[in-house]
Amino acid sequence: VGERVPSISTQHGRDAGIVDLARGDPGRDLLPAALVREAAERATAACDPDLLQYGHEAGDANLRAAIAALLEREGAGTCDPERLFVTAGASLALHLVLTLFVEPGDRVLVDAATYHLALAQFRDHRLWVEAVPGDAGGMHPAALEDALRAGPAALLYLVPAFANPTGVTLAPERQRELVAVAERHGLRIVADEVYRLTGFSDPSSHGTVPPSLAAVSEGHVLGLNSVSKILSPGLRLGWIEGPGRDLERLTGSGVLRSGGGMNPFTGAVVREAIESGALSLHIARLRGQLRERHEALAGALRSELPEADFATASGGYFLWLRLPGVDPAGERARAALRRHGVRVAPGALFAAASTDDTGGGGERERMRLCFAHHHPAALRDGAARLAAAAAELRR
Amino acid sequence: VGERVPSISTQHGRDAGIVDLARGDPGRDLLPAALVREAAERATAACDPDLLQYGHEAGDANLRAAIAALLEREGAGTCDPERLFVTAGASLALHLVLTLFVEPGDRVLVDAATYHLALAQFRDHRLWVEAVPGDAGGMHPAALEDALRAGPAALLYLVPAFANPTGVTLAPERQRELVAVAERHGLRIVADEVYRLTGFSDPSSHGTVPPSLAAVSEGHVLGLNSVSKILSPGLRLGWIEGPGRDLERLTGSGVLRSGGGMNPFTGAVVREAIESGALSLHIARLRGQLRERHEALAGALRSELPEADFATASGGYFLWLRLPGVDPAGERARAALRRHGVRVAPGALFAAASTDDTGGGGERERMRLCFAHHHPAALRDGAARLAAAAAELRR
Repeated sequence: VGERVPSISTQHGRDAGIVDLARGDPGRDLLPAALVREAAERATAACDPDLLQYGHEAGDANLRAAIAALLEREGAGTCDPERLFVTAGASLALHLVLTLFVEPGDRVLVDAATYHLALAQFRDHRLWVEAVPGDAGGMHPAALEDALRAGPAALLYLVPAFANPTGVTLAPERQRELVAVAERHGLRIVADEVYRLTGFSDPSSHGTVPPSLAAVSEGHVLGLNSVSKILSPGLRLGWIEGPGRDLERLTGSGVLRSGGGMNPFTGAVVREAIESGALSLHIARLRGQLRERHEALAGALRSELPEADFATASGGYFLWLRLPGVDPAGERARAALRRHGVRVAPGALFAAASTDDTGGGGERERMRLCFAHHHPAALRDGAARLAAAAAELRR
Repeated sequence: VGERVPSISTQHGRDAGIVDLARGDPGRDLLPAALVREAAERATAACDPDLLQYGHEAGDANLRAAIAALLEREGAGTCDPERLFVTAGASLALHLVLTLFVEPGDRVLVDAATYHLALAQFRDHRLWVEAVPGDAGGMHPAALEDALRAGPAALLYLVPAFANPTGVTLAPERQRELVAVAERHGLRIVADEVYRLTGFSDPSSHGTVPPSLAAVSEGHVLGLNSVSKILSPGLRLGWIEGPGRDLERLTGSGVLRSGGGMNPFTGAVVREAIESGALSLHIARLRGQLRERHEALAGALRSELPEADFATASGGYFLWLRLPGVDPAGERARAALRRHGVRVAPGALFAAASTDDTGGGGERERMRLCFAHHHPAALRDGAARLAAAAAELRR
């Protein structure tokens, strides 16, 4: 048996001397290995062979009840466990939804800047992706209306809370307006809500949880959720919140009938982590750490790069920063960033084609900076390096 | 938190007094809960947060090396770990292959009787499925040639070893002939090899492992594998063996880039189970149990139902039995089976449309009986009940 291979996270950017603000994964020190070890011990203690059997297609009812209880405890509102379908993470949930609910060639509407690897999934499923313009509060309801008048769409993909990459959270009023337009046109919304429990604006560490879009419109929204951002990506455990008729299509699909429910074993581990209260304690601690890291990066950017334009975040993993005159995907900027040993995710990565003629160009000066991976000291170092690269580019 | 919900297996057929020979899952007593508990303990003992991080898209290199070592140790031949891609089970592997390698409307060729839930997946992906005739040795190479001359196909789906539902294993010569036809036509083969390590004909309990189709034609075959039939379905851990260019399409897909490798956590548990030697010991014990159960069912059928036509199995989970004059999907037979408290999976379930004009009708008198789930005593009881129902139907 060979050497331990670098994980996906260490493939990019653990080079010595580089501050990688492009990566979007949680730092190693935010991953609670002891918590998971103890939850796994408790889950396997009784040697129950049912843990090892094909699982119920919708996921174990105890786990679904535990998830609903967690959401309520975290201030995320009530949720009927019957409206939950357990998945092996949110990415695979999106994959299943795209297989079952849309056809190749269908039109999908997204934000002008949206999660780039959702865009990659849309491409794999041969969909036609169009960006709908928005403002600092997220997608414009009137622009969505225009886009739907121009032609039918099969899906609206949104990241409603602490969005990747913009950090924007849809206000309840904006949520309702977008949902009203979607409902009027019979449009299904896929709401990628994986950052929803990461809000850190409340100093009590308890955070403010934005309303779930899946709860705002019970009939038209599939909410994708995951423990990846609040516990551990490696467990591959998430859930879809949605209407029963949609969940039935998922549980009745060939892949579910053949393989049974997704991840019964790690589901049992997550159930223990929830029921013991350990996950809630971890989320509270995590929010504190994210707040600290956000303040380190945002503070350093404000002092080192006063010309940088960005909104402070109140949750999630990211800042969405504009450096006037700098295109971070351009050759010159990339060389300068490389010279100063700092990586950023260029805004162009997150752009789909636009329904207006801006072509996403307005976001070309943007870059996504992740504050979840590095320690505060490394984040301050990264801001200084970015400032040095920007100074060089202005010369 | 509510009551423990019945698992998928207990949803059907744990009714008191019914012998369910239709279900295809391993019995609870074949699921090694202590083995998995110990492997999970060892995997989590060091509290390594890398276990909890997004995993390498192809799967951890240590796990892939362990899988290759297991295959070699079990007499399944050598396999380059670079030709392995770790998946969350074989069903999901098929789902990914169908998303990335075929288009809706494409033609898929299958055996006259094939795994019914693969057929369900083909339907979900809107494929055109056609059966290619065969004989007791599996699919006819000449019939495959005819089917391909009649028009192009995107995929050939086979269960080459201890097939579900027929129990047939392709002899090496038949494998080579089918592969030669496929290669000549540039046809990709998906070989569902999940039963490959369950061979129990060798009294040493070590079994004879049929050659892997993925090794016979390295360029044209994607071999789907899983620990579901040899360790535990609930872990959702499998692998695809195939050519590098195909694995690159899988690892480069949006869902893998977004979610990272599939099941890093349970992958680490399976790696421990392999490296400790516990999985090999379990497979040896399992083969003995399957042989014992197969003998119990086959022996009882021979004495109780001498008119039944079936080939004894040398691996896998199933007998493929024909009762002359009995259509197990018909109203009369179903009522008789119900009255005598025995369930079987009717042959019609496993039939796709045929490329000749038999319409799968030749398999209508067939039924699939699973000997992996019940104890020998229950299997003998099931055979007696089936004989009683058949006697009633002959009256």
